[in-house]
Amino acid sequence: MQKKIITISRQFACGGKEIGKLVAKKLNIDFYDKELLAIVAKKSGYAIEFLEETGEYVNASLLFNVATSAMVGHRQFVQNHEMPLSDKVYVAQHNIIKELAEKGPCVIIGRGADSILKDRDDVFNVFICADMDFRKERALKYHKMEEKNLEKEILKRDKKRAAHYNHYSDGTWGDARNYHLTLNSSVFGIEKCADIICNLIQDM
Amino acid sequence: MQKKIITISRQFACGGKEIGKLVAKKLNIDFYDKELLAIVAKKSGYAIEFLEETGEYVNASLLFNVATSAMVGHRQFVQNHEMPLSDKVYVAQHNIIKELAEKGPCVIIGRGADSILKDRDDVFNVFICADMDFRKERALKYHKMEEKNLEKEILKRDKKRAAHYNHYSDGTWGDARNYHLTLNSSVFGIEKCADIICNLIQDM
Repeated sequence: MQKKIITISRQFACGGKEIGKLVAKKLNIDFYDKELLAIVAKKSGYAIEFLEETGEYVNASLLFNVATSAMVGHRQFVQNHEMPLSDKVYVAQHNIIKELAEKGPCVIIGRGADSILKDRDDVFNVFICADMDFRKERALKYHKMEEKNLEKEILKRDKKRAAHYNHYSDGTWGDARNYHLTLNSSVFGIEKCADIICNLIQDM
Repeated sequence: MQKKIITISRQFACGGKEIGKLVAKKLNIDFYDKELLAIVAKKSGYAIEFLEETGEYVNASLLFNVATSAMVGHRQFVQNHEMPLSDKVYVAQHNIIKELAEKGPCVIIGRGADSILKDRDDVFNVFICADMDFRKERALKYHKMEEKNLEKEILKRDKKRAAHYNHYSDGTWGDARNYHLTLNSSVFGIEKCADIICNLIQDM
């Protein structure tokens, strides 16, 4: 197995986390989703709930940062102000992701890990997407979201993930060119997606 | 085999056509790349060389169309002017692609076939991308391009394909969400990509 770190980026509510969990189980390697947040929380002192939002979704702090940087120029902004909270969280998360990759084979869910680990040649980057009906069903069942404005809320989560990724990485979230493999989980199903990833990684 | 039409979109010089040809051979189904252009040429009277460029790459005619539509509003433009040449080619190609899909199982390379056939539920959409070094090698070997400005020329072809796709379809060229599967051919290799597609399609 030449590629030993698997990063899984995903649209909201398409089963990416479940696929990653199955892959880690089948390959008997470590799995980092909330587990990653727990480590960042322990090292940085931030609450897990706070990291869950700030580490992957664009928020008011990041928007303020982007807007102010654009207005006054990034260098000037950095000179005149303390590092914004969203950047601090990003740096903490970035360092932990690099450390975990160093530790050994694993699956890392989201958080721009594909971009953070782009200088390594043992990383396999996957993106999972799915049709809206499939995602709606999962959002109701697993994310306990309400039926009212469901599609709008799902798309809002995607948009915030995309904005976070596009701000901190060189690529565009969801662009096939960032990933080695992308799969539509509503076409293949969760189990089959995990099997496809495992078979490909074991063949490499 | 529930999915019987395979569309393969691809970056320039990443081996997408070769992968499609292998898939068609392995599955013993029809293959349309230049074969499609020959049919469009026969029905429309346009030269194949002209269709090769106009049917997939943004060109002066399409740029004029886009710019003029933006200036005067699309409806007014359509009322006052004859349909632009790029639109005529698109319509001819669009109709042939729909007819071919109706005829039976096949592989169709490029030309926005994924978007043209989006209302069918028996279509499997694939996008192939690859790292730049791999594409450079193929561009020199198979497309007989010159070493000078090679990367720039490759990216120019991508950009023109993207602009054509983005103008005529609802999606964004290369965005994983348009496709059921995307593969990086420089990671897997041409033969393996064809095998992956065949195995997946036969399992569905």
